[in-house]
Amino acid sequence: MKNYGRLTLPTDLDVIDETIALKESLGADAIRDCDGTQMPQELLDLDAKVYATYYTTRKDNDWALAHPEEIQQEYLMTDRYTARNSTLTITLMKGFHTEQLKPNFIDDPKQWWEVIDRTTGEIVPVDQWEYDEDKGTVTIQTIPYHVYTVSFLAFLIWDPVHMYNFITNDWKDAPHQLTYDVRQPQTQAYVKEKLKKFCEANPHVDVIRFTTFFHQFTLTFDDQKREKYVEWFGYSASVSPYILRKFEKWAGYKFRPEFIVDQGYHNSLFRVPSKEFKDFIEFQQQEVCHLAKELVDIVHSYGKEAMMFLGDHWIGTEPYGPYFETIGLDAVVGSVGDGVTMRMISDIKGVKYTEGRLLPYFFPDVFCKGGDPIGEAHTNWLKARRAILRSPLDRIGYGGYLKLALQWPGFIDTIRHVIDEFRSIHDTIQGTKAYVSPFKVAILNCWGQSRRWMNNQVHHAIWYREIYSYVGIIECLSGMPIDVDFINFEDVKNGILDQYKVIINAGAQYTSWSGAENWIDEDVVTKVRQWVDQGGGFIGVGDPTAYQYQGQFFQLSDVLGVDKEIGFTLSHDKYNEVNPEHFLLEDIEDEIDFGEGMNGIYAHGDNYQILSQHHGYAQLVTNTYGKGRSVYLAGLPYSPQNCRLLLRTIYWAAGKESEMKKFYVSNVNTEVAAFEEVGKIAVINNTTESLSTDLYMHGQKVQTLNLKPMELRWVEM
Amino acid sequence: MKNYGRLTLPTDLDVIDETIALKESLGADAIRDCDGTQMPQELLDLDAKVYATYYTTRKDNDWALAHPEEIQQEYLMTDRYTARNSTLTITLMKGFHTEQLKPNFIDDPKQWWEVIDRTTGEIVPVDQWEYDEDKGTVTIQTIPYHVYTVSFLAFLIWDPVHMYNFITNDWKDAPHQLTYDVRQPQTQAYVKEKLKKFCEANPHVDVIRFTTFFHQFTLTFDDQKREKYVEWFGYSASVSPYILRKFEKWAGYKFRPEFIVDQGYHNSLFRVPSKEFKDFIEFQQQEVCHLAKELVDIVHSYGKEAMMFLGDHWIGTEPYGPYFETIGLDAVVGSVGDGVTMRMISDIKGVKYTEGRLLPYFFPDVFCKGGDPIGEAHTNWLKARRAILRSPLDRIGYGGYLKLALQWPGFIDTIRHVIDEFRSIHDTIQGTKAYVSPFKVAILNCWGQSRRWMNNQVHHAIWYREIYSYVGIIECLSGMPIDVDFINFEDVKNGILDQYKVIINAGAQYTSWSGAENWIDEDVVTKVRQWVDQGGGFIGVGDPTAYQYQGQFFQLSDVLGVDKEIGFTLSHDKYNEVNPEHFLLEDIEDEIDFGEGMNGIYAHGDNYQILSQHHGYAQLVTNTYGKGRSVYLAGLPYSPQNCRLLLRTIYWAAGKESEMKKFYVSNVNTEVAAFEEVGKIAVINNTTESLSTDLYMHGQKVQTLNLKPMELRWVEM
Repeated sequence: MKNYGRLTLPTDLDVIDETIALKESLGADAIRDCDGTQMPQELLDLDAKVYATYYTTRKDNDWALAHPEEIQQEYLMTDRYTARNSTLTITLMKGFHTEQLKPNFIDDPKQWWEVIDRTTGEIVPVDQWEYDEDKGTVTIQTIPYHVYTVSFLAFLIWDPVHMYNFITNDWKDAPHQLTYDVRQPQTQAYVKEKLKKFCEANPHVDVIRFTTFFHQFTLTFDDQKREKYVEWFGYSASVSPYILRKFEKWAGYKFRPEFIVDQGYHNSLFRVPSKEFKDFIEFQQQEVCHLAKELVDIVHSYGKEAMMFLGDHWIGTEPYGPYFETIGLDAVVGSVGDGVTMRMISDIKGVKYTEGRLLPYFFPDVFCKGGDPIGEAHTNWLKARRAILRSPLDRIGYGGYLKLALQWPGFIDTIRHVIDEFRSIHDTIQGTKAYVSPFKVAILNCWGQSRRWMNNQVHHAIWYREIYSYVGIIECLSGMPIDVDFINFEDVKNGILDQYKVIINAGAQYTSWSGAENWIDEDVVTKVRQWVDQGGGFIGVGDPTAYQYQGQFFQLSDVLGVDKEIGFTLSHDKYNEVNPEHFLLEDIEDEIDFGEGMNGIYAHGDNYQILSQHHGYAQLVTNTYGKGRSVYLAGLPYSPQNCRLLLRTIYWAAGKESEMKKFYVSNVNTEVAAFEEVGKIAVINNTTESLSTDLYMHGQKVQTLNLKPMELRWVEM
Repeated sequence: MKNYGRLTLPTDLDVIDETIALKESLGADAIRDCDGTQMPQELLDLDAKVYATYYTTRKDNDWALAHPEEIQQEYLMTDRYTARNSTLTITLMKGFHTEQLKPNFIDDPKQWWEVIDRTTGEIVPVDQWEYDEDKGTVTIQTIPYHVYTVSFLAFLIWDPVHMYNFITNDWKDAPHQLTYDVRQPQTQAYVKEKLKKFCEANPHVDVIRFTTFFHQFTLTFDDQKREKYVEWFGYSASVSPYILRKFEKWAGYKFRPEFIVDQGYHNSLFRVPSKEFKDFIEFQQQEVCHLAKELVDIVHSYGKEAMMFLGDHWIGTEPYGPYFETIGLDAVVGSVGDGVTMRMISDIKGVKYTEGRLLPYFFPDVFCKGGDPIGEAHTNWLKARRAILRSPLDRIGYGGYLKLALQWPGFIDTIRHVIDEFRSIHDTIQGTKAYVSPFKVAILNCWGQSRRWMNNQVHHAIWYREIYSYVGIIECLSGMPIDVDFINFEDVKNGILDQYKVIINAGAQYTSWSGAENWIDEDVVTKVRQWVDQGGGFIGVGDPTAYQYQGQFFQLSDVLGVDKEIGFTLSHDKYNEVNPEHFLLEDIEDEIDFGEGMNGIYAHGDNYQILSQHHGYAQLVTNTYGKGRSVYLAGLPYSPQNCRLLLRTIYWAAGKESEMKKFYVSNVNTEVAAFEEVGKIAVINNTTESLSTDLYMHGQKVQTLNLKPMELRWVEM
């Protein structure tokens, strides 16, 4: 049925008639409630699936308050305090918000807390510190002018997402929702029973949309109710003595708070993960997925579908982990911030369908004076569309207050166009896959497959100066005709490289993304060198293979043909000159945007060619190494031109230049996705300007297309 | 005698009459020859001291060729080569110039060379490699895809400075001068005898200007006769098995080539020096100073003066080392590139006088079409003059081809003004010292006093992008009313801090200048913290106290109130806001130049004030810490305004703001030097523009001065 289906709309009590009209007009086949909105009774009988947003861990303060020991806990680390004499008293909650978190004095602090002398890195013995519950302090016997921290457990007495929504939407009267720990025995039994009751009481609900399971990603507020730190991938709020005792038994070694607080870095994804943290993730996945399955089974027993929101309390589900499929979910839904986050959802295996919530969210921070919801919808769709052509979502939807969207002139027409185009893709490609390069590409970092489409991210699709020059790599790839895997250093040691023609190592020095100490692992460097020597292509971005050791900063500087000046070779002369004549730059006309770029890169050896320099240092360098090739890029933010540069870089590194134009378009602002099984080619204009582009097939130009702004043109093969 | 004396001019065979005329006109009291020029017989009877440039280590190829085993040697390290299978043959001289260096096969390579597996850092046993003298190669039994280097001894068959002058001046016929090692027994005896003969044969020579003693700083050319690496402080060309055997006996442990080649970094001053390298410097100083004294004694025995050129073969003399004074030199002469290099000469103790060779050198690379020798003379004098007011040279001079200077219109008048002003300073101050702050300041790094006025330098006064933002600190200080010491971390541990009110730690991360691992030394950090807490002032520039450890990058981030984002705390929110209202900025009107600046600096704690930000990161931050204070600066290139900013920074950090205007001028482009003993104040205009400035004494404005471009005005107290 044309112009119908694959679409979910939000609703609320104040837009009942409008929801009905819009459902018809846009062809929606599902409606949903949101945090802060309610599903009107009048809509339950519509010809549409009904999604019920379901919270397993909150919206039941009575339960939480009756079982204080089963409130969800989080490991916190105090700020660092310097002792000025032989004792030091630290106020635990200084800098945290007492309405969000409350120190746990129920479980023995001497067992579960840790005081660390950060000047030596040593644990302060428990007989050298005392806590005071009334004052909320810890007093330590100190060495003067050493620095101390206290790691301690705190109860999450205000659910972080509820707190965030409360603050963002300026809610006034809503009681603060506590978060209880569904993993613990009493709560677990209660939550299961409650879910059954909900299913029974809501026969009209078709889909239980879990928001989400048990543990919130780390989202901690400061004493001024501002975000203090946020880690979308963080496990700090997934702990409790109950869980940690189980972990100790499972792991076979003693737990330490330091495994979680990690010197105060809270295991940011940018940290090279410790063995213990990787163990903890493994353990949590097993436990979380097992328990999530039990809830999903309950949902299924009532003939309903179970959908998981990829966000909020998603910790431990790890959609690219080995246990996710065992949950038995029907669907995953998540927010589509760009191509990367689209692929993060659409590439998930083990569910019947995936759904993406497009932007903008119908919240007052965008639908306001000075806001540009139509522009945001365009930008979002341009990024999502090219990725959808490679790996389509099954459904799309929107979230927030429908009323805001209805009131904004032109907005509904904008999303109507998006929705129709989304359906046209499905109608045309008929479930077939777009053509991809005849070789595979791998992105190599410490996380590998477990962080597929999650590289260099801090918070879901949020821009940071330090990351956009790297995120561009995966944002470009998300919509490119490239079959990409994400691998880690263990995979390399286990011999995975033979599967690939090109590997990419992209990230800042000493982070998990570039790999840090893995590059002084003899097994890793020899395997990668051999693989390149025998014909592999190595692409390094930013600080690839960086680790200061034995006279080099880039440990594969022989492969890359470049190293980085970090001050020790200032006395060495560099005679680098630029030669931009190269396959990589053949249709690159504008100045290349390297983002933040990189300072200090110089080329050396006999086989390099510098294609671009800045202030005397190289930004883009090619090198040959035996039968293999390498390319160094100082950075690669997302842009249509940079997608083209990356395409050329990959084909050149693979030594497959002659095959690049099997399906190709000349204008760098356009891309092509070829669906050979249905004989159709999608040519997309990735800009909001009209333009023309030449279409190539099998290396030959076949026609010139004039495309309207943002147009997707289907061409017969 | 006014307008006479304190001046040395160069001469040559082709400018005899001109030299005589110019000597009279400029009031020179000494004349000299240079490398490439000769002293005319006609000038020996003039009423002027005659300096003879004297080379102990070269200009005697007959001797060198007759004693090949006593030619000076240098430790080289080959490039890094990756093994692709189980053997690897490395050509030793690849990338070096065979006219400059020749591998030493005379001394057993198996004893004196070292093959290192750079993938593991391990030494390859000597039975796993073989050398081939005919082919100049080493063949190694390798582990495939490991990286190897060969460290080997080579003879310096072309003196580096002679080679440099030869290439720079495009000499054609001059034979390449070999360098012989005066430390070795036969050469030592020969050189002493030769010096005696020279003294006897040259009764008209008054001053033997040693250029210099025994070991050239590291200056190595590549296979295209281009400079390959240069380290003005480098000891790589001060070695021989003869010397190294003595070193082993002295040190009590076995020598390794790695002590010298240092992974290929050749102990760049930017490296944290190893114990072994520090031992080697100590040993060389003892030996070199001892032998230099013997030569100086010979000179004295003929009634002549001995002067040392601070450059070329100066290695081991270490003018700020403990043995320098024992040489018994009459004088040191050196090139004045700026205020820093001026102080490097003028602060030397243990000589009767110091002499500075001002710029420009009369060489064709400046006295040419497009050259600006007058502008260079102005810039040089503006930088030197402010430093001379703090610590005067006794004499100045010029070098090169006098003919070039005579032919350039206006140049002689320019230097006449410089010379007269130099003499007026001496005439006025009468050997007294300018007023300095009532407290002392120390610069803290790994080198301390041994590298007084040598911080962050690669090659004598040469600009590098990576250093100018740090060199600015000492360039500013060279002309400021501040009593400055240079201290190292051992000094801190030994309790030196009590002598100071302010310490400065300035440099890039992990270099000897910021201090690297010294900042995780418990003794260092507790002593510095305590000292600040009790009232000290800590100024950090660039990456002060940087070493990634236990959750911090800046180890004294508690003292500084700032840390640096290196990717691990991207998930932590920073709410930094600027407040430029501060004593530091009271008369700073132009935008502050932080040079290369620093990315990622954020403030934290309760006591900071951010005075300047860029892209959301801090560039200038003040903090309080107990009774002490700290200031963070992202960088501080030399400029008149930055001198003022540093003056204010130091007084504020010391908590002595109220004393800053004891002698003071309002205009940041002017400075003041007060000579209380003679009742005179020098007010200098550090620009080439006219300007006015208010003079303050004891906190009160006493007059407004209108100064001409570059003017030095003497004001009565």
